[in-house]
Amino acid sequence: MSLDRLIEKIAEKQNPTVAGLDPKLDYVPAYIKEECFSKYGKNLEGASQALLQFNKGLIDKLYDIVPAVKPQAAYYEMYGWQGVKVLAETIKYAKSKDMFVITDGKRNDIGSTMEAYAAAHLGETNVEGETIEAFGADALTVNGYLGSDGIKPLLNICKAKDKGIFVLVKTSNPSSGELQNLTLSENGKTIYEHMGKMCENWGKELTGKYGYSGVGAVVGATYPEQLKELREKLSTTFFLVPGYGAQGGGADDVKFAFDKNGLGAVINSSRGIMCAYKKQDVKEEEYAEAARNEAIKMKEEILDVIGKIKL
Amino acid sequence: MSLDRLIEKIAEKQNPTVAGLDPKLDYVPAYIKEECFSKYGKNLEGASQALLQFNKGLIDKLYDIVPAVKPQAAYYEMYGWQGVKVLAETIKYAKSKDMFVITDGKRNDIGSTMEAYAAAHLGETNVEGETIEAFGADALTVNGYLGSDGIKPLLNICKAKDKGIFVLVKTSNPSSGELQNLTLSENGKTIYEHMGKMCENWGKELTGKYGYSGVGAVVGATYPEQLKELREKLSTTFFLVPGYGAQGGGADDVKFAFDKNGLGAVINSSRGIMCAYKKQDVKEEEYAEAARNEAIKMKEEILDVIGKIKL
Repeated sequence: MSLDRLIEKIAEKQNPTVAGLDPKLDYVPAYIKEECFSKYGKNLEGASQALLQFNKGLIDKLYDIVPAVKPQAAYYEMYGWQGVKVLAETIKYAKSKDMFVITDGKRNDIGSTMEAYAAAHLGETNVEGETIEAFGADALTVNGYLGSDGIKPLLNICKAKDKGIFVLVKTSNPSSGELQNLTLSENGKTIYEHMGKMCENWGKELTGKYGYSGVGAVVGATYPEQLKELREKLSTTFFLVPGYGAQGGGADDVKFAFDKNGLGAVINSSRGIMCAYKKQDVKEEEYAEAARNEAIKMKEEILDVIGKIKL
Repeated sequence: MSLDRLIEKIAEKQNPTVAGLDPKLDYVPAYIKEECFSKYGKNLEGASQALLQFNKGLIDKLYDIVPAVKPQAAYYEMYGWQGVKVLAETIKYAKSKDMFVITDGKRNDIGSTMEAYAAAHLGETNVEGETIEAFGADALTVNGYLGSDGIKPLLNICKAKDKGIFVLVKTSNPSSGELQNLTLSENGKTIYEHMGKMCENWGKELTGKYGYSGVGAVVGATYPEQLKELREKLSTTFFLVPGYGAQGGGADDVKFAFDKNGLGAVINSSRGIMCAYKKQDVKEEEYAEAARNEAIKMKEEILDVIGKIKL
């Protein structure tokens, strides 16, 4: 009912990072694409199978050193239901390797509909008495614009199945301030801080052993000042921090996301890891080894700044 | 590049409503479920096929009188990739009957990822030079919490492919005011009004023939005062209005969403139409006929209040 399983994996591996699996077809080595296109055709099926192969190769080389993966739903939906099937298969494969899986879906809706999303991504679907996991991730990113109604169904499933959520608070994109940085007359807080406080409240139902609840917050590495401010103000909220590497954030930016024990955040890198082979000037057959090297480098950069992670 | 195709269908059919296709398995008549379970098994495939049969039956009885359908993505994702396949098939079937299709996905993300969602739901996916429609709806609901970056990729696809979007402004759920009704120090506006103004700005790139842009707003029937306020303040923004019927909104609530020509909004009913057969005390084999009767009743209730729709 919290993010403790993630926190324990982070401490065990001494690695507070998550590998984003946002597989554009452009990122996939040509030899994988050629094999899949010749087997399945140059279509959504062939493309999706190429993504799956690519993901499995990455997971095989990352699972012993990286605690979690974060597949981004958009890059699977883009390849139709065939891509969505590969999202489910990627989640299953990562879980078989004991990785913690965060589906980045940013889902949001009214209460009755959120029950469906919660069942889909974190819980089980009931088919006339048979219960079946549709996607079965460990955590889901969500958008809180609709208020508590849209969050409560998730809390129920988090409690029942030991899962977590991450609510968008201060996002990593350049225009995130257009709305999120505005100030509320009611309390003088920015919208992002107010949303953060809502996370603290929702999290009261899902307390964890290490001081952090099951309701995390998404806060971008590209805004280190806000990371620092929010870490001070939201003492029970664990952060998922996107924007490291390709989007511009570095270890000196994300250090503010951590507490004195090196806990409190997990830092995501997607392109930086997936496309490491393109930067390292190695053969494309070594894409997964290159990703592993990049993941180790990222972990070391962050640990150099935050020190040993203590539970 | 606007919502003109929807507006023209509304005027042609003299019907400013959209049928929500949010098919819970509980809504599907037993004879359809039994047939599909015996053919495909009591699993995600069998359940999904039952939803597809149910949807097709509804569309067959609605397409000549109702201009649009709005499938809710959550209820398909709940049945895994098999359900998502049925979402694609439902969209294709509704389009084959010349209905306007609004995918209710409330998607949102940073710019590069929104490009993937825009391609998935409204545009085309490029597989090494082959372009393929993954879902191919006419419009998509989106959440604007991330600001302009997350909206711009959609505007580009709306322009190129004559599609539209609906941004969440004031949602129909009980807790929508928790965030949306708060007031901004910067301009004294509520968050929902500010978001509405953002829609007006985004819509400037997508002007239409009838005074409404391609960037619509979601405003709930359950908040008639806000509907009235926003109709007055957002003169070029077309409204998608959920919350009619089962959620409590009626014709006297939604009348404020329309302009003097009876344009300006499309009103959604989901459960009210899908489950009409349960209320009308008819045989379940007549579920689609019952849905048609309910759709006609809803249309007449609304036209009684707003009068003839004039282009």
